Amino acid sequence: MPAPQPDFDAFDRLVAERSERWAQELADFCRIPSETDQAAPLRLAAEWTAERFRRAGAEVRFLERPDAPPLVVGEIGGGPRTLLSQDHYDVQPATPLELWTSPPFEPQIRKGRLYARGAADDKGDFLFRLQAVEALRDALGELPCRVRFIVEGEEESGSKHLAGYLADAPDLVEGHGALIEGGGVDEVGRPVLVCGVSGLCYVQLHVRTLAYDAHSGGARLLPNAAWRLVQALATLRGPDDALTIDGYLDHVRQPTEAQLAHLRTLPFEEAEIKRIHGCPVFVGGRTGFAAQVAETFQPTSNIAGLVSGFTGEGEKTIVPAEAWAKMDLRLVPDLDPEIAVRCLREHLDRRGFTDVEIEPGSGESPYWTPIDDPLVDAAAAAHAGIFADEPLRFFSMPGTAPLHQLCAPHGLPITSIGGSDAEVRAHAPDESCDLDLMVKGARVMGRFLVGFAALE
Amino acid sequence: MPAPQPDFDAFDRLVAERSERWAQELADFCRIPSETDQAAPLRLAAEWTAERFRRAGAEVRFLERPDAPPLVVGEIGGGPRTLLSQDHYDVQPATPLELWTSPPFEPQIRKGRLYARGAADDKGDFLFRLQAVEALRDALGELPCRVRFIVEGEEESGSKHLAGYLADAPDLVEGHGALIEGGGVDEVGRPVLVCGVSGLCYVQLHVRTLAYDAHSGGARLLPNAAWRLVQALATLRGPDDALTIDGYLDHVRQPTEAQLAHLRTLPFEEAEIKRIHGCPVFVGGRTGFAAQVAETFQPTSNIAGLVSGFTGEGEKTIVPAEAWAKMDLRLVPDLDPEIAVRCLREHLDRRGFTDVEIEPGSGESPYWTPIDDPLVDAAAAAHAGIFADEPLRFFSMPGTAPLHQLCAPHGLPITSIGGSDAEVRAHAPDESCDLDLMVKGARVMGRFLVGFAALE
Repeated sequence: MPAPQPDFDAFDRLVAERSERWAQELADFCRIPSETDQAAPLRLAAEWTAERFRRAGAEVRFLERPDAPPLVVGEIGGGPRTLLSQDHYDVQPATPLELWTSPPFEPQIRKGRLYARGAADDKGDFLFRLQAVEALRDALGELPCRVRFIVEGEEESGSKHLAGYLADAPDLVEGHGALIEGGGVDEVGRPVLVCGVSGLCYVQLHVRTLAYDAHSGGARLLPNAAWRLVQALATLRGPDDALTIDGYLDHVRQPTEAQLAHLRTLPFEEAEIKRIHGCPVFVGGRTGFAAQVAETFQPTSNIAGLVSGFTGEGEKTIVPAEAWAKMDLRLVPDLDPEIAVRCLREHLDRRGFTDVEIEPGSGESPYWTPIDDPLVDAAAAAHAGIFADEPLRFFSMPGTAPLHQLCAPHGLPITSIGGSDAEVRAHAPDESCDLDLMVKGARVMGRFLVGFAALE
Repeated sequence: MPAPQPDFDAFDRLVAERSERWAQELADFCRIPSETDQAAPLRLAAEWTAERFRRAGAEVRFLERPDAPPLVVGEIGGGPRTLLSQDHYDVQPATPLELWTSPPFEPQIRKGRLYARGAADDKGDFLFRLQAVEALRDALGELPCRVRFIVEGEEESGSKHLAGYLADAPDLVEGHGALIEGGGVDEVGRPVLVCGVSGLCYVQLHVRTLAYDAHSGGARLLPNAAWRLVQALATLRGPDDALTIDGYLDHVRQPTEAQLAHLRTLPFEEAEIKRIHGCPVFVGGRTGFAAQVAETFQPTSNIAGLVSGFTGEGEKTIVPAEAWAKMDLRLVPDLDPEIAVRCLREHLDRRGFTDVEIEPGSGESPYWTPIDDPLVDAAAAAHAGIFADEPLRFFSMPGTAPLHQLCAPHGLPITSIGGSDAEVRAHAPDESCDLDLMVKGARVMGRFLVGFAALE
């Protein structure tokens, strides 16, 4: 028998009364330009977060390590069950600035959306969860469970020090379930529950062919680092855009028949995705179910940045001495960052590109929870009465979050309750969130806390 | 019968007396940061040039066209024969600044070399030629010929308006021979006469695959502009570094047996070139005579710059929406820029890269003079007594200068008298010139003017 549901009218009234103030609070948070790797604004954002926890009446832990942004932990509520909420106060760099309609750190509300770097990822989602926790406590008198917000300052640059923080304070990962940052609705507004996260392997490839840039008249003889890098990169991808890193795909766990059958029940808004991103064709011409399978079960091999030689306005005629490519590989079970780097190194070496250096960056292993876990059922139930549609259960999100570090030690199940829609432009210029959707997210969050507390 | 040679003692004495002041004058000129495409400092450099001509007693023409740096022409001397000197007051951009030992526009003399952007290319060579002309006039009382310095302000960005200037003033290209900018000595100090220039076809390739950069979780579906550009570029070059642009090499005039025989008499300091540039192997593993043939008779297909996505410090995980490559193709007879662009376009189209745009930049046709032309003989004779070695005659320089525009209308022969050595690092950080070599160049220049005047 499920526990009797409390009356959520008082909670919903508080949410409605506070929603305008909540939007202003989000704008305040987004004014802090806490771009990942920028120590000074990151500290401001960490302090803002800690202060916000204090105002909510949470127990605050402000953890520090050398050369790392603080890890801010806020714990609120009580009872036998503890929910972890994985969040972060750092944001992606806002460049290229010229593509923003309004400046990234001067939040602006237009047509019900708040535009700012971090509006969605993750300041927006973090705040509405905390705001919902507060409102639920105020409505019910006390919280039905304990919630531990674990708010990082370097999620966008690979959570480099999270492992160290967790080693210092292993009690942080004790609990009974976790919310992944993000979540929300799909391209046509149906709520989505995400039950996994991709891993990530970030590397920088570097080639040097000359002691210094040379006059390009010398190009008949002098090796060009840009050409060398292009030639190396070209071996990593087939003409049909297939991933051709030797051995890389051999580590990918194949989807089961049951997983494929579930995937077929999920909508895939191909035309909408293409419209939003302005691309008439997907990678490799994938379409329909094949594209959906790739989106869910495939790793990536992405060039995030490429630079060599003269990149300014005008013309300069040189043979570049150096070239760099930043690559991020999104990982699915059973790939991990070590395997990915090893495959890449062996692939390049086998083709004679021993001169192409691989500088490893951040790494995260993937982490997936079965989509029929009771935690996921509770999250689904929390949407009743707020969204018309039953939530869709997705195996994993395309992006990465450090859930493996947080949840693998105790095997915690994970899901998501977020306020993102297909227009948020996370990581891109004109990031925004739909303020109404954030309010709906808060209402779902309140109900989920009650459902989560009632789980065995 | 050659005309009786004047006594050069008085001239040589003047050169020796003035050489220290000349170096200071070069430092003054190099303090003007006249980077190509930078209108304000270019105007300063144009005015400096015009003023310098006036001080030398030259007739000055300060030609202007809209949105173009001035063309400064200085004419001095008289008699039936006119020598053109092709020069420029603009310099290559000084970036990357952090690789300069001393700032590029704060000239510094270290161990007999003057370090500054433009010290060699072309402020240094231009100035010693003018200084030599002045000194010869002062020593002999009058010049034996007329010299017309044509000093451009956009040579380093492809002489875009030179054709217009020359159309306005077609008398500028009348004369009996021309000096190419540059010239000097080879890797081991032997004087070199360059009898041709490469052409140039500058293009920017551009690809857009998305309306805006996307979160790289989307890389399973969203086409990446960097990958697209890499794939397109990779088709332009074989694994052995061969140029594989369809049809491009078909237009290259094959060397004659006589040319190859002459080439075999020329030194090729392979080890020295490799040492200076810090590269153990040449492009495609070329070595010995094959490398020398390529250096002389091959066009290039060079990536001068490459940029896409996030290129800053740290990590950003995006699918780049756009990617650019700057390419410069050095041309030999019988290629010209139109042919090069057409080959490139057809090559890309044939492989389905119709989405890769080619934005044409500056273009120059190649121009070669036979190495046994009387002008070249006169230049060779001018070196007697100053250099121990007979000058080596090179078919062409690896770089480009607008000699086709200046000399093709009247078929003027060309050669070079310059002060560059293998350490000048033209277009690169730490550009410099050997001040003693500039003085030797001035002494050669004085003798050449006398020899040039005596030609039929």
